[in-house]
Amino acid sequence: MPEDEDSMVVERPDDIEVPPPSEPYTLIEPFEFFNDSSGISKKCLIILNQSIRDMNLRRLWPNTRLHICADGGANQLYDYFEDEDERSKFVPDFITGDCDSVTNEIKQYYISKGTVVIPQYSQYSTDLTKSLMLTKIYFHSETLRSKLYEGIESDNGLSELGQSLEASGATPVYVYMLGGIGGRFDQTIHSINQLYKLNQSDPHLQIFFVSHSDMIFLIKKGLNYIQYERKSLFNTSRKAPICGLLPLSNTPITLNTHGLKYDVINWTSSMIGNVSSSNGICGTNGFIVNATDDIVMNASIDHY
Amino acid sequence: MPEDEDSMVVERPDDIEVPPPSEPYTLIEPFEFFNDSSGISKKCLIILNQSIRDMNLRRLWPNTRLHICADGGANQLYDYFEDEDERSKFVPDFITGDCDSVTNEIKQYYISKGTVVIPQYSQYSTDLTKSLMLTKIYFHSETLRSKLYEGIESDNGLSELGQSLEASGATPVYVYMLGGIGGRFDQTIHSINQLYKLNQSDPHLQIFFVSHSDMIFLIKKGLNYIQYERKSLFNTSRKAPICGLLPLSNTPITLNTHGLKYDVINWTSSMIGNVSSSNGICGTNGFIVNATDDIVMNASIDHY
Repeated sequence: MPEDEDSMVVERPDDIEVPPPSEPYTLIEPFEFFNDSSGISKKCLIILNQSIRDMNLRRLWPNTRLHICADGGANQLYDYFEDEDERSKFVPDFITGDCDSVTNEIKQYYISKGTVVIPQYSQYSTDLTKSLMLTKIYFHSETLRSKLYEGIESDNGLSELGQSLEASGATPVYVYMLGGIGGRFDQTIHSINQLYKLNQSDPHLQIFFVSHSDMIFLIKKGLNYIQYERKSLFNTSRKAPICGLLPLSNTPITLNTHGLKYDVINWTSSMIGNVSSSNGICGTNGFIVNATDDIVMNASIDHY
Repeated sequence: MPEDEDSMVVERPDDIEVPPPSEPYTLIEPFEFFNDSSGISKKCLIILNQSIRDMNLRRLWPNTRLHICADGGANQLYDYFEDEDERSKFVPDFITGDCDSVTNEIKQYYISKGTVVIPQYSQYSTDLTKSLMLTKIYFHSETLRSKLYEGIESDNGLSELGQSLEASGATPVYVYMLGGIGGRFDQTIHSINQLYKLNQSDPHLQIFFVSHSDMIFLIKKGLNYIQYERKSLFNTSRKAPICGLLPLSNTPITLNTHGLKYDVINWTSSMIGNVSSSNGICGTNGFIVNATDDIVMNASIDHY
């Protein structure tokens, strides 16, 4: 792929101040999850069936209002705690999915603590998409939310209930997914696929995947400002936390950034050409990404 | 994305016999790595800096001729063994990379056992690409191979030596990479980026990434037959090992398959549309993928 003649890469110091753009932009705040003082009103934590052993659940759990285990995610949550006293303080609101992974003992344990189990046996969607549908319904209105406690048809009831919802005008919901990236590779790519698709169908759902090493989210087509209180909120081990801009949709993307270790100017990125990996975040409170199409970003975090 | 009208998904039994196509095809044998009786002449194992703890190195090592540690991959290899007697039987031929991760003690240990260290300090390529350049040179000719032992310029010498090589006419080299997929997400995507790019620049290098759970490789544009002796060679836990076809390049891809759990016919796949994940491998000795462009595949393996 030929580079534009005026394409450039500029190396920055580890800390630079980058104010928000003066033109209209999309505000992205991926690290609010780590900010104990931010509001929790429309924030959801979804635990998928992948080890969460080295994540700091004790810190992250109180920062979200709704807690869902996707099928075997309940096993992961149960096994996370060794102490029964502590375990009983982290009870999910819901367990959903096709329930072929959650053990009966663990399901009964959480039911006894007040968890509502919503089995959805349909094989035409995944535990991840079922959990997201539940999230949409829960935050849509009090009326719809109450239906979740009245019994949902166990094959595909959530999806049928959710089909009628209009995404337009909905206020933003922050969804943090533990697991989903870093395990079986087709599951990882299914997660990224959902990230792109949900941005089309339900742009008010702001999805953040949290892996052992990264926060993974979507940068929107156009001008974006990624904002945070301070970098040490999500990464204490590096002055310029490592990041990447990953063109995983089906088109080459031209990028302009301000606030990264290797800022790019008129730089075309594609999976069969250039990809900006092993980059770094230098902006002290935020950085700018201008992209000609939606692009996936990862930022390395530590679960301190 | 609108589907073709004649697009179909057909469910198959777990075991079906799928003979090779009668028309010309690309033969792909990703699981030869597990086949102790296959030849080792042009096979290389590259260990990257990511945990290999749950992989069966003892089984895989003897199936490859050349062994390279990419920088901190040497730490991973060293730490893999608890018993010194055993450790000393798994000595890599080379350690290369910018050598900012391998500890001095471990470097000295392997040097004392006969490993050749080729530092390459350039930051314009990664430890992964440096290791691949070394592989290319090693298998190109006896003359070039001997140069590797005579001292290589320590900034970018490998790349300079390799630039002159012509890929055309070269016989296939099988490269198995441990690590590279499943850790930091921008590294994972860098690995996939290399998979696509190397297929253009060096199609004789057949790259297979081996993660804790998967084998990840490229299916080529056109008709492919993916062949193996038996499925239990790479996966003992499932009759139809889970797999995915992952359209991570820059174009939607139309797929036709024969031998998967959910075979697709005239099915368009793209990262912003349909992706075949959680599929399964049913062909007892092989299956067919016909694709309108290169596409990444993963197959779940177990490290028994």
